[in-house]
This record gives sequence, C-alpha cells and structure tokens, in this order.
Amino acid sequence: MHLTIKDIAKYSGTSVSTVSRVLNNHPDVSEKARTQVLKIVEQYHYVPNNSARNLVIRESATIAVIVRGIANPFFTRIIKTIESAIYAEGYSMSLHQIGSSDDELMAAAMLEREKRLCGIIFLGGRFNYSAMDVATLRVPFVCCTYANTFGALDPEGFSSVAIDDKREAYRAVRFLIEHGHRRIAALIEAKGGASISQLRYEGYCEALADAGIALDPALVECAGSFEMEDAYHAAARLAERAHFTALFAISDAMAMAAMKQLSLHNIRVPEDCSVIAIDGLELTNYCTPTLTTLEQPAEEMALASVKTLAGLLRGDGTNNHVFMETKLRTGASVRSLE
Amino acid sequence: MHLTIKDIAKYSGTSVSTVSRVLNNHPDVSEKARTQVLKIVEQYHYVPNNSARNLVIRESATIAVIVRGIANPFFTRIIKTIESAIYAEGYSMSLHQIGSSDDELMAAAMLEREKRLCGIIFLGGRFNYSAMDVATLRVPFVCCTYANTFGALDPEGFSSVAIDDKREAYRAVRFLIEHGHRRIAALIEAKGGASISQLRYEGYCEALADAGIALDPALVECAGSFEMEDAYHAAARLAERAHFTALFAISDAMAMAAMKQLSLHNIRVPEDCSVIAIDGLELTNYCTPTLTTLEQPAEEMALASVKTLAGLLRGDGTNNHVFMETKLRTGASVRSLE
Repeated sequence: MHLTIKDIAKYSGTSVSTVSRVLNNHPDVSEKARTQVLKIVEQYHYVPNNSARNLVIRESATIAVIVRGIANPFFTRIIKTIESAIYAEGYSMSLHQIGSSDDELMAAAMLEREKRLCGIIFLGGRFNYSAMDVATLRVPFVCCTYANTFGALDPEGFSSVAIDDKREAYRAVRFLIEHGHRRIAALIEAKGGASISQLRYEGYCEALADAGIALDPALVECAGSFEMEDAYHAAARLAERAHFTALFAISDAMAMAAMKQLSLHNIRVPEDCSVIAIDGLELTNYCTPTLTTLEQPAEEMALASVKTLAGLLRGDGTNNHVFMETKLRTGASVRSLE
Repeated sequence: MHLTIKDIAKYSGTSVSTVSRVLNNHPDVSEKARTQVLKIVEQYHYVPNNSARNLVIRESATIAVIVRGIANPFFTRIIKTIESAIYAEGYSMSLHQIGSSDDELMAAAMLEREKRLCGIIFLGGRFNYSAMDVATLRVPFVCCTYANTFGALDPEGFSSVAIDDKREAYRAVRFLIEHGHRRIAALIEAKGGASISQLRYEGYCEALADAGIALDPALVECAGSFEMEDAYHAAARLAERAHFTALFAISDAMAMAAMKQLSLHNIRVPEDCSVIAIDGLELTNYCTPTLTTLEQPAEEMALASVKTLAGLLRGDGTNNHVFMETKLRTGASVRSLE
C-alpha cells in the first residue's frame, strides 16, 4: 500500500494543493489543515519520514515484485524486507506471484501495460535469459536470489543479487569432508537443467573431486522437485540403495523431509548419518536434531535488490551483479567421524 | 496475471476487434488471424477454457486479495487455490500483503481508488469489525479463514468462510481427554483479545469444563505472538513451572517449536507429553514425531471464498457464512494414558 497525494487529500478532507503545501513545508497553509494532513500521513504510516518530497514528485511510481513459487518459505522473509525497502525509497509495490513453472518474463511483459511501472524485481526465476527474452522489458530489473548463470545477457543491462550457488554447495560438502566424511550422498532436484539444483550439484561434484573422492552415481538422487514429499520419497530410494555417512540436501525443506525418512529407516541423524543443507529457514531451527545449514542472507539480498533498483531509477546508480555469502548455522545434524 | 483483449491484440499483431471476433467464434475472420490469436491465448495459458466470452465482456475486473501476515505458512496453500479459482471465474487477481498488525480495512480503503476493483477477499484479519469500520467498502467482500465473531455487522452485508475455532479447539482438547489426559497445558498467543487465540483458548476451557477438569492457570502460557521463537520460549516457561501430560498448541508452528523445547527439557513426545495442534501444515508431517493436528481445509476454504464472491458479482448469489470442519491428521505425537 502506498499513499498518494490524492488519497491524503481525500482522507484529510483537504485539497491536493493543500497537501502538497503541507508536505513541502510551505508556509501558506492553515494550522488546522496542516494538522489534518499530517494526522492522515501518520495514521496510515505508509509514507516514510524522509520521502514526503519524493512522494509528491513521483507520486505512485510502482515497482513490481514477481515472485516465482510463492510457496517457497525462504521467499516470505525476503518479500517482507523488499516491501519496506521499496516504501522507504518512496515507491509503491505491486506484488505478483506466478507458479514455479510459469515464465516470469511473460508475466513481466503483461505488467508493461501498467503505466506507473518503473522497475521490476524478480524473486526467483530462470537462469538462462537471452537478449531476446528480455527485449520486451522496458524498465530496469533486478534478479533477486538468482543470477543469469546459464544465459547470455549483457551484464550491464540488468542487475542480480544472489548467492553463488555452486560455491556455497562446495562449502557445505567441504564442511562434511572436513568432518571426516567420504561417503556423501546428494539430494537434488534434477541434474543438467539451467537451475539452482544443477549449480549446487556442480558444487557437490567439485568438492568431492578436490578431495580426491570419486563421484558415485548411486549416492546422487533426484527428487524431481523441491517439494518435501518428493524429497521424502527420494531419500527412501537413497537409503535403500546405498550406504553413506553424510547427506547434502540442496534445500532446508528437502533436508527436513529426508531426515524424517532416514529416521524411519533407523538411520539416526547425526549418529549414523550427518545432514547439511543450504537455506537457513527459521523452521529448521526447530527440527530434531536442529539442522546444520548455510543460511542465506535474505534481508541483505532484499535490501541490495531494492537499493540497486532505486539507484538506477534515480539515475545515480548502475547495473551490477552481487554475490553474497551464506553464514554457517551450526545445528546438531553433523558429527565428526574423527 | 490475466490477459486482456488488448494484450492479445498486441501480442498477436491483430486488432481488438479481430480478437473479439475470434474469441466469440465470429465467422468473419481470416484463418491466419484466428491462428495467431489462438496461439497467444494458448501460449499465455492464463485464459480459462470456458471463459473466453467472459474475458471479452468483463475484461479485467479485479478481485483484490489482501493477505494479513504473509509469513503465515498456512496462507500460501490458500493463496494458490484462490488465485486459480479467481482466474477460472474470469477475473484478475491483485495480491496485497500487509503486516500482521496492520489494518486490512485501511488497506482495502486505499484499493478503492482502483477503478477495476470489483470485490475483495481478506485472507486473515480482525475479528471485530463494526458497521462504521466497513462503511468505506463499496464492493462485496469475503473474510477467508476468520469470521466476525467479536464484532457487530449485519451478516447479510458480507461473507465469511472459516473454521469454528472454538469448536475445533474443543475437539483437539477433547481428543486428549479421551486419551486419558487430565493435566493438559495450553500454549496460546494471548488471552482476552478479539482473536483466533482467544477463541481457541475458550474451546480449551470448555472442553476441560465439560470433562469436569478444573482450569489450572499454571498450565496456560501466552507466547505473545504466533512466532516460533516466542512459542519456543513460552514452552520453556511452561515446562519449568508445571507438570502436564499433554499440550494443546493453537497452531502447528507453535507446536513444533514447543516440541523442540520439550525435548531439551528431557520431556519426550509422546512418551512423557502428548502434543496436539490445529492447522495441518505440510511441514509438520515431517517433524519427529509427526505432529497430530486438526487439518484445516485450506483448498475448500479458498474455493468457497471465491465461489461466494463470484456469485455476488454475477448477481445470482447471496452473502453467507460458512464454517468448515477440520480433519484429524493422526501423527505420532499423542499417546493414550490408558
């Protein structure tokens, strides 16, 4: 929600020009009108303190946030921060969700008819945009939580804020290796796609290779999705097929489902099998055992996305590509073999 | 996202009148134009099969969905279903989130400036609307997941789809009593408010009273919010203060956090303490032990909300108030004392 100058006039029972004078600290306004206007401004508390001027000038320029896969619990934290950051910058936010298999660029193209649209933040999306794919976008955009790793776009034409999925997966698996594990299973979504799953799988492979551990295909299981139920079944296939002392899951939710399945197979975590993941969801703090995971800097990614976009819109910033680091959240799901 | 006739014309390189003729199966249109138009319609797959006519007639009438507390994991399932139901009825959806302490009616009032707005679904909200509160709403609205239990509104002026929170809490606690429990603790958000927490607390009290069990204030703990972290600390206070053989938590997430805390106090679930909750989140299927919970009919509530609103908009439906029943999802967190 974002208050426009017209709304303030309506709700305070004054005129647009009066509101404008109040917000710009113009002396030519009665004390009564000033009080009425400021009361509404405060009551709706949607107008950031420092942007009363911006509000008047830019009124209701809108940043669209297109969320791909709204059921992703990791995104809810990010949306919250993005929203307040957008308002703090003096813009309105328009929130759109699409299914995890829908095309966010097509959704964006349809938003172009919205005349107040000034920028887009994609929260989740494909990793393989081509120049043609984005040709329809006439406003600046930021890819939040992903980079165009498999695509071909002029980096100066867009921005991205993400973690380096391959490097972080490498770190997670490296952590297991440093704790003496060599039979390390991987629970991924799918191999070979232009996706986060592929990047994290590559990090897994590289960490094994660097430690001189041969890749055993029997230790890699594809769930086919990021859903807990699919991860749960995939973990059963893994447990029935192979022996391993550690499991790397590409997401917290998948790790949680896998831990449940392991316990049904009388494989205790961490006594018989250590588990590590990437995400750092709040809820896996309350699993038993608490999940050890690499926590994504959700708030920081949200803030950086909005800051970059706002800089572009103001004209004093440039497109850039930021990779942020995760932070190890030590739970009780990894034990040392040594 | 919803395709308007103008969008189809634009993307298919035809005119609005051509698109209209195609969608209405008018014979006076070239095969080439027909193919182009239908290709776009299919490609964007946003247009439900049976509503091509509706699309033309009503174009882009919009139903706003105002989500209060988007971090509530229970809502994500509902949003998904609401969205597809709205499109299936031939409307566009506009999604808005507000904080859990923000006022959804104020948010709605600000949406009134949107000229295409034809109805509102409130997903979560206050339980105490007065006639004055809703006087600014000029379109029909449905309260989804809550009823105006503590307020005073003409029931014919709005609709609601919810569970009967008091009755369902009664059922949950009754289930524990039937399993031989008498020392039953309650983990709630707060007492006395016009809220879901108060209703579920009342159900707890009534179930105890009907079973001749005196209410022991030492067994009731307020977390102060629905957050897992607050529930976690509240469960510690409970565990350190009182002895109980069962715990009723007013939400799944709170129950999960409490189970974690109990295990740290060497209170095993369900051996030493049974736990039951209300919600039926997917993720508590993967807790250890699996949570026994009363599952809310999320999809059914979503569908009923949209169906009611669509009936009102078409003019062939009336406002009504539906209470749906939860379904017991038997986990492994409750044991019988007998």
